[in-house]
Amino acid sequence: MALRGSLSRLLRTQLHACQNSRAHSVAILGAPFSKGQKRRGVEHGPKAIRDAGLVERLSNLDYPVHDFGDLNFQHLENDEPYMHVPFPRTVGRANKLLAGAVSHAIEAGHTSVLLGGDHSLAIGSVQGHAQQCPDLCLIWVDAHADINTPMTSPSGNLHGQSVAFMLKELRDKMPDIPGFSWMKPFLASRDLVYIGLRDVDPGEHIILKNLGIQYFSMRDIDRMGIQRVMEVTLDHLLARKQRPIHLSFDIDAFDPSLAPATGTPVNGGLTYREGIYITEEIHKTGLLSAMDLVEVNPTLGATSEAVESTASLAVDVIAASLGQTREGSHGVYQEEPASKEDTEQLRL
Amino acid sequence: MALRGSLSRLLRTQLHACQNSRAHSVAILGAPFSKGQKRRGVEHGPKAIRDAGLVERLSNLDYPVHDFGDLNFQHLENDEPYMHVPFPRTVGRANKLLAGAVSHAIEAGHTSVLLGGDHSLAIGSVQGHAQQCPDLCLIWVDAHADINTPMTSPSGNLHGQSVAFMLKELRDKMPDIPGFSWMKPFLASRDLVYIGLRDVDPGEHIILKNLGIQYFSMRDIDRMGIQRVMEVTLDHLLARKQRPIHLSFDIDAFDPSLAPATGTPVNGGLTYREGIYITEEIHKTGLLSAMDLVEVNPTLGATSEAVESTASLAVDVIAASLGQTREGSHGVYQEEPASKEDTEQLRL
Amino acid sequence: MALRGSLSRLLRTQLHACQNSRAHSVAILGAPFSKGQKRRGVEHGPKAIRDAGLVERLSNLDYPVHDFGDLNFQHLENDEPYMHVPFPRTVGRANKLLAGAVSHAIEAGHTSVLLGGDHSLAIGSVQGHAQQCPDLCLIWVDAHADINTPMTSPSGNLHGQSVAFMLKELRDKMPDIPGFSWMKPFLASRDLVYIGLRDVDPGEHIILKNLGIQYFSMRDIDRMGIQRVMEVTLDHLLARKQRPIHLSFDIDAFDPSLAPATGTPVNGGLTYREGIYITEEIHKTGLLSAMDLVEVNPTLGATSEAVESTASLAVDVIAASLGQTREGSHGVYQEEPASKEDTEQLRL
Repeated sequence: MALRGSLSRLLRTQLHACQNSRAHSVAILGAPFSKGQKRRGVEHGPKAIRDAGLVERLSNLDYPVHDFGDLNFQHLENDEPYMHVPFPRTVGRANKLLAGAVSHAIEAGHTSVLLGGDHSLAIGSVQGHAQQCPDLCLIWVDAHADINTPMTSPSGNLHGQSVAFMLKELRDKMPDIPGFSWMKPFLASRDLVYIGLRDVDPGEHIILKNLGIQYFSMRDIDRMGIQRVMEVTLDHLLARKQRPIHLSFDIDAFDPSLAPATGTPVNGGLTYREGIYITEEIHKTGLLSAMDLVEVNPTLGATSEAVESTASLAVDVIAASLGQTREGSHGVYQEEPASKEDTEQLRL
Repeated sequence: MALRGSLSRLLRTQLHACQNSRAHSVAILGAPFSKGQKRRGVEHGPKAIRDAGLVERLSNLDYPVHDFGDLNFQHLENDEPYMHVPFPRTVGRANKLLAGAVSHAIEAGHTSVLLGGDHSLAIGSVQGHAQQCPDLCLIWVDAHADINTPMTSPSGNLHGQSVAFMLKELRDKMPDIPGFSWMKPFLASRDLVYIGLRDVDPGEHIILKNLGIQYFSMRDIDRMGIQRVMEVTLDHLLARKQRPIHLSFDIDAFDPSLAPATGTPVNGGLTYREGIYITEEIHKTGLLSAMDLVEVNPTLGATSEAVESTASLAVDVIAASLGQTREGSHGVYQEEPASKEDTEQLRL
Repeated sequence: MALRGSLSRLLRTQLHACQNSRAHSVAILGAPFSKGQKRRGVEHGPKAIRDAGLVERLSNLDYPVHDFGDLNFQHLENDEPYMHVPFPRTVGRANKLLAGAVSHAIEAGHTSVLLGGDHSLAIGSVQGHAQQCPDLCLIWVDAHADINTPMTSPSGNLHGQSVAFMLKELRDKMPDIPGFSWMKPFLASRDLVYIGLRDVDPGEHIILKNLGIQYFSMRDIDRMGIQRVMEVTLDHLLARKQRPIHLSFDIDAFDPSLAPATGTPVNGGLTYREGIYITEEIHKTGLLSAMDLVEVNPTLGATSEAVESTASLAVDVIAASLGQTREGSHGVYQEEPASKEDTEQLRL
């Protein structure tokens, strides 16, 4: 990645692994990690999503699915808070490990599907994706902007700061947090679109406005409709050139009536159909190269039904992102239904 | 129906019973039948819908309602499966009986309202309607397309094949299933519109595409909005000429959160308001001549509340189809509210 | 208010308290009153809404909030029905008291927030508001039109007749109901817009049509979308001139799944997001001068959860009306997030 001229960029985008990986196979990576926030339980998200039938559902699609199991994260001793940010080194180390795994999966030709775990994992997931596909764009579907810096964050939790680590424009706003020396900001704010925001901190609001980031709050979805929101989103990111998409989907983007088993639910979220529509539209571009499905916390559902419906929703989002359609489909080479005569012969 | 020339068709459409029946009176026909699928309980649908207050609700409308009670279906002995299709003769015989009853009701000047029972009953209901009104068009509101042939059907159940029996274009794809020799295909695929699809089998998808059938999946509703969907639906069916409408409404078109007591629920269905809007628009044409309300299965609700809300929803759909409005109404000859002076006199 | 010429009106609108009150401070008035209808419990609405955290939530906004506690209503002895209208003198007396309180609050420079109690309280709230702001307009968000006269009302309940007391055009339709001699009709029907109607009595429908009142039923919202509904609403009321808005919000405008703890729920109501969008749009005009939040009845929820979610919804409606936004905000003078260097210095 030393060459930066337009010729080298052209060569790279034509030759790069990420250009060949899409829709050929899927790699599932489990990330049982919860140190980006203070509520325990979200580390059981990958198991809940798998138990809801993920692999079986994806087996209906047209390409092979490889479940690489769970990553093995370490909890570091003596991981003192930085300012009021807890577990900085543990979160940094986990994301470094994850970045390598995602990069490896993309390089091997897979579409990477990360099962969280909390949303701090997006730091490693998107960074690993960007190692292979430096020109990626990012669609962040979430009730929250997760763009606090340690200085603006009310809670200090790193799952509310993931995007701030990525953005080049925030470089001089981000202190040197221990555990993150392995990475540098890699994303331009114009290559990011938010969908679903409805709980934005004041400091985040300043950053969104100052950087001119394209975002669609729930109010915008009410105003424009989800069809138009997706049209503008994809036009904003892809009009200049086709390039790999990273979808980072926080289950709390959905209304709490649909996704109750999550750590920071906010009323007035996406309907089931809006969530599926978003992912169908992304799939239709043919450019989805990696995705995260995060913040399913099976210990927070009031009933086992609440947990199952949240996990099942996660499976629906992943399946629709990867090509499952509501209007049905049939393989290209599938034959016409047998005619009456065929059947009569069959029965002789 | 021996004459087929355009003159005779003109005469027939001008003279036929179906032209005089609309909105003058309503005939309710109960069809306690469940052999078009394998889950028992849907035969109790008519009772559940009546218990939810159907007749009382319709009595607020401007025309008389006649409840003709339940049809008396027979379960045939020795009704061996045809291929993997169970109960072919029982389903065929029931639909023949039903077709006669619907035809008779239309002929007598009623708008026919069929209470199912499973959706295989639509075969007889639409066929009976077509006996009187050969130029009818069909609006099929359902999560499923019900257009499998025995050869494409994964389950074999006839409630998933109803439309295939009706369509002229599928004549050579349909084997001679025992029990159905009394009928022939009678509907052109251009005279059919689907609304609400979200679980379409691969074989069904091929048929929908090959025949160019107009359908609106939930994705289409998300994309276009229900207002536009109804505009296109009615334009597609009625732009060339005004003609009788048959509405076949499967309660599973609604989201399972609204209609849980049904056999094959699928997430991401119609909202209450979308379902009512569909039927209000159909009523407003003044052309609704017969309808089916099917697949309410009171044994499948988790609670009695779930059953009651499903049945109550069925009542709302029927009432809105027949003219109940949300914005209120008043009869044509109703007087102005009494003035102050009238009242003062009244109280002297 | 003796002068009525256009010059005096010009002077008055420029000088009047209502012109200076908006968004400077908020006065909360509790109205524990239930005699406008027959179900007891709605008098506990103010306590339920306060317990759901109203004052704390409003403290996040930019202006001071004053909770003036509950008004002290009297139940009159020997309050015989007028025709079939129960408690006329008790309702009249309560509204006279309330009108004075609201007028006083507006005069003192507050935005008035009435916590009901039943919707008959709007008579006094809007009348008191109009004492200070005679050119106000009224947005009535409700499942019901509440525009019956005693002669058209099926139930006789005054909470279904509030608007009829206000409208100048209904003067000769309204008898001299005991308890209301202190007030005269003060509102022109063109200065009123309804949103959310879906249960309109025949007599009400005649009145709405005869007076040509602008209303948006749930069907209209389905047809037009909430964005367009608000655009037309505000254009209808404000296009000729900017003027104070009175928002009278009945919690039963929402779907019963969201607001179960209310006296006359009707299926197919506003979504959470539509309700919030309505109030956001009203806030954005900068013209909200007084509002009512009525018909939260904590004795009618099936569970304590149902009551809490209804009361919490009321808080959300009030907060959004007063400026809480979903896309976040930051005060005008708030600084940029601290830069990395600032923090490093901080930590030295």
